[in-house]
Amino acid sequence: PDTKLPQVGTTIFTRMSAFAQAHQAINLSQGFPDFDGPQALLSRVDHYIRQGANQYAPMSGVPGLRTAIAAKVERCYGRMVDAETEVTVTSGATEALFAAISAVVRPGDEVLVFDPAYDSYDPAITLNGGKAVHIPLQPPAFEIDWEQVRQAISPNTRMIILNTPHNPTGQTLAAADMQELSDLVAGTDILLLADEVYEHIVFDGAEHQSINRYPALAERSFVVSSFGKTYHTTGWKIGYCVAPAPLTAELRKIHQYLTFSTSTPMQLALADYLNDDPQHDQALPAFYQAKRDRFNAGMEKSRFQFTPAAGTYFQVMDYSAISELPDTEFVLWLIEQAGVAAIPLSVFYQQPPEMRLVRFCFAKSETTLDQAAERLCRI
Amino acid sequence: PDTKLPQVGTTIFTRMSAFAQAHQAINLSQGFPDFDGPQALLSRVDHYIRQGANQYAPMSGVPGLRTAIAAKVERCYGRMVDAETEVTVTSGATEALFAAISAVVRPGDEVLVFDPAYDSYDPAITLNGGKAVHIPLQPPAFEIDWEQVRQAISPNTRMIILNTPHNPTGQTLAAADMQELSDLVAGTDILLLADEVYEHIVFDGAEHQSINRYPALAERSFVVSSFGKTYHTTGWKIGYCVAPAPLTAELRKIHQYLTFSTSTPMQLALADYLNDDPQHDQALPAFYQAKRDRFNAGMEKSRFQFTPAAGTYFQVMDYSAISELPDTEFVLWLIEQAGVAAIPLSVFYQQPPEMRLVRFCFAKSETTLDQAAERLCRI
Ligand SMILES: CSCCC(=O)C(=O)O
Ligand SMILES: CSCCC(=O)C(=O)O
Repeated sequence: PDTKLPQVGTTIFTRMSAFAQAHQAINLSQGFPDFDGPQALLSRVDHYIRQGANQYAPMSGVPGLRTAIAAKVERCYGRMVDAETEVTVTSGATEALFAAISAVVRPGDEVLVFDPAYDSYDPAITLNGGKAVHIPLQPPAFEIDWEQVRQAISPNTRMIILNTPHNPTGQTLAAADMQELSDLVAGTDILLLADEVYEHIVFDGAEHQSINRYPALAERSFVVSSFGKTYHTTGWKIGYCVAPAPLTAELRKIHQYLTFSTSTPMQLALADYLNDDPQHDQALPAFYQAKRDRFNAGMEKSRFQFTPAAGTYFQVMDYSAISELPDTEFVLWLIEQAGVAAIPLSVFYQQPPEMRLVRFCFAKSETTLDQAAERLCRI
Repeated sequence: PDTKLPQVGTTIFTRMSAFAQAHQAINLSQGFPDFDGPQALLSRVDHYIRQGANQYAPMSGVPGLRTAIAAKVERCYGRMVDAETEVTVTSGATEALFAAISAVVRPGDEVLVFDPAYDSYDPAITLNGGKAVHIPLQPPAFEIDWEQVRQAISPNTRMIILNTPHNPTGQTLAAADMQELSDLVAGTDILLLADEVYEHIVFDGAEHQSINRYPALAERSFVVSSFGKTYHTTGWKIGYCVAPAPLTAELRKIHQYLTFSTSTPMQLALADYLNDDPQHDQALPAFYQAKRDRFNAGMEKSRFQFTPAAGTYFQVMDYSAISELPDTEFVLWLIEQAGVAAIPLSVFYQQPPEMRLVRFCFAKSETTLDQAAERLCRI
């Protein structure tokens, strides 16, 4: 058949993971931990399966999990949200992002997207007849030039998509960015979609700049997060979206026809775990910062250049001193030469700037990180 | 915000289940079993969670499950499919339906839908800029008038959506229907989407008319099914789509941005169970026929009129002898008067014909069925 998404192939994550496996390389490409989440969480699923909690969850999520999410949002960000009308559990953050975009983007609408951008935003916008307006961020700092954003806004601007901590760059937005954003949207109808799946992974004592902290922004925002990143269970595919009731109502209209609901026993297990151990999140920055530092220490003697990631479990590195290959070719060469898989950064740009950057995932055991760094130092 | 789906509210299933719960009624509305699936399947999830299978599954589904699905399609319908390029595991059949529609329906395309139609088809078509062309089926037999279908076809017809065994009517397509369909689409580019989630629930010795049996139809079809209905695990939300490689490629482009992948430990558990007990499906017709017959026997003395369902776990009943209320009001009255929740049929029509029909779900324990019938006989 002819194709509705001519520019779309198989996601880079699937391709690189498959290629890594075929070459038995250490897979630092697709982002997922090689260790398990808390045992109390893992073993709780079976409890509910045996209890017979194997039929449809309510469309918006099991009540206990929505309540636990609302409590968490209040605890972490001081925002009061109504679990009944403002929280929706989805099949991963990916579904929440797709549903939020589908809920509000109409044919002809423009959506501002900062490049490098996570690869699911664009197809969702396109499928809804919208137009993604790409604002390229410049390496190495990838900072937002708010004047450029101001100029990109038109009467058709429906939404701005934010992502902090940022995948793939590992950068974070600062309080000053949130101020700029607030000034920018004040008095407009522009909606916001905040992809905050790495909300609990920020380093060096910084504070995550969640939209949830800013009432004037929150009132026009879909805030999306994921349990997969926080509880080391990316394969459970449970995410959620927090949004004011009118936006949530529109989101649910879509969600109910995209997937309707999400794994009942896993939702119940997560609800218990969130209630029993609300402090798990607070240990995450130190946990992942140690991994970042371990990997980066191992890479000191390599010919890669880098500044430490500010958040996420990704470290971007510059390979200019090693190779002149474009990054999409360099990652293939790297798998063959070093046996380590990475993600090229240019694939996340509509028009990639001149740069030689790859992304490594450091959500791995110390052994894996040490071994990968050792291999990478050899080239 | 203004709404993209003005005609859409909360699904009838969510509303009726909530209303049933509020009134502590017996819930024969939303379709789900009140009993569990096979223990060997249920306990297998924990095995994989403990093994650490908690990270992303491959985007198309775990290989073992795709292989087991291919084996099942061959065993049940004699169709050879390639597990690698023609089978995709999704977050329930709902996601498969949405992805298939999104994969091929373009703005201006027409999609033929038979009413009464499952409520997710229309929004998916609308969100993709397509136009649903509704063909109403007439009670009580709900047979397809193929001449009417022929007349509804236009140069813009992109797809026909089929559903057999049919929800909500409990009717099934016959071999003669498949012949008519084959004649109709031969020589055209019209695609088919077959919703066959009740494929293993057909009664009175009949054979399920799967698209998979008809090569000339299968080559242009997305065939969607669900493990939830077959293994009594509707809350696990694992479905799949079988389609020729070029259609599967387009479907996966969407699937990878809708949800990316689906619960890893549950997929692995299902793969084992399909391999270990390939005969489970064959016991389903007798299992559910006994329930249908038990419920219907209990209803003999009621003032409802009915002909036994030919498939699915739904029984449609006519309440003309009881009330003149429209069905959307009758179901509310029924909850209050009899303490039994049902689904009105008119909500599945764009333009409901004159009729007084409700749908009862008989995927329930004998005690529940007996008690519900007893209550319904009293009014
Ligand atoms: C859904 S697979 C991609 C995982 C991820 O978020 C990443 O590697 O960036
Ligand atoms: C996804 S909730 C609806 C369940 C169902 O298929 C039905 O009741 O018809």
